[in-house]
Amino acid sequence: MTEPQASAVDLFPDAPDLARRVAFILEIDKLKQVLRRTLLLDASRVENDAEHSWHMATMALVLHPYAEPGTDLLTVLKMLLVHDIVEIDAGDTYVYDAAASQTQAEREERAAERLFGLLPEPHAHDLREVWRAFERRDTREARFARAIDRLQPLLHSYHTEGRVWRQNAVAAADVRRAMAIIGDSSPRLATLAEDMISDAERRGLLR
Amino acid sequence: MTEPQASAVDLFPDAPDLARRVAFILEIDKLKQVLRRTLLLDASRVENDAEHSWHMATMALVLHPYAEPGTDLLTVLKMLLVHDIVEIDAGDTYVYDAAASQTQAEREERAAERLFGLLPEPHAHDLREVWRAFERRDTREARFARAIDRLQPLLHSYHTEGRVWRQNAVAAADVRRAMAIIGDSSPRLATLAEDMISDAERRGLLR
Repeated sequence: MTEPQASAVDLFPDAPDLARRVAFILEIDKLKQVLRRTLLLDASRVENDAEHSWHMATMALVLHPYAEPGTDLLTVLKMLLVHDIVEIDAGDTYVYDAAASQTQAEREERAAERLFGLLPEPHAHDLREVWRAFERRDTREARFARAIDRLQPLLHSYHTEGRVWRQNAVAAADVRRAMAIIGDSSPRLATLAEDMISDAERRGLLR
Repeated sequence: MTEPQASAVDLFPDAPDLARRVAFILEIDKLKQVLRRTLLLDASRVENDAEHSWHMATMALVLHPYAEPGTDLLTVLKMLLVHDIVEIDAGDTYVYDAAASQTQAEREERAAERLFGLLPEPHAHDLREVWRAFERRDTREARFARAIDRLQPLLHSYHTEGRVWRQNAVAAADVRRAMAIIGDSSPRLATLAEDMISDAERRGLLR
């Protein structure tokens, strides 16, 4: 059992396409170790990017009726499944950390090149474009995916007594600013966000 | 800050549909705490069902060219995102544990009733049907989703020197039996599985 492990590429010398797809699948396992600030709902630990991505994709399934009419669910799911993969190289950037946010775009662009580049073409290009659309927020699908990406941590912070907000002395005004994009996709989900922010403010969970 | 937290239902007395969807979203957070036998690729800890579900959905994106022609990717993604949710109530059943497998179907059916039943109709019915199709394996989409569900832990076990196999004294014949369904969706992925099993057998990682 000391014999070296065959790699995906060794196993399929005749199938470079499949070998590259398997190499990507193995590499993205690392997303399970990229930690976020958001707590699980029982506040027992912070969540990681892989769990977060699953939760958001499933949220999109369930909240799709509240998206702009004509929002293509398959495209939204692809976005939510792959959008955090860049954080394997670039790390998680807290939405209320202004300094880290400045270098975020460049770090994430490099990461997208490397990580999606593990896949064969045209799949590498496709997923890179899905990720870029998410970042640009210029399609209905991207607006909905980004709305979900904001709503999920808000739900968690609100339902864990604002512990992460209080630790970071987050202001209600900053949360409102971050959450404003939800309304571009869904007025109803924007109202849900505002109801939680107002209640948290009233109860002193936000500055 | 000792004032009781408003629940989703309290927040939206006028929006029972949205309140139920939010209650489902909060409930399924528990999937992040259902542990599996499979190790992360660096063998640092076992993975949980939420991470596993994300990994499989993303695998489906990337391996879709190897599925039966005409396999609908959106249906596959829905299946992979929701299929493990029943384990919040029913727990994870190790594929090589014969005793637990006997009561698994009944426990999971009860769980599907309760958990998907948190959603409003017709969405509760839809997701329950998606989950049942996955279990029955009688559509192209279900065959592909189930193939991915077998392939993911095989990739992990193979790439962690078969540690979980060795701890449970798993036989190569049992792995071959469990993996046989992969070929119903994808001959190429079945060959990939067999290559890993044969190599693991030759190296003494499987009985």
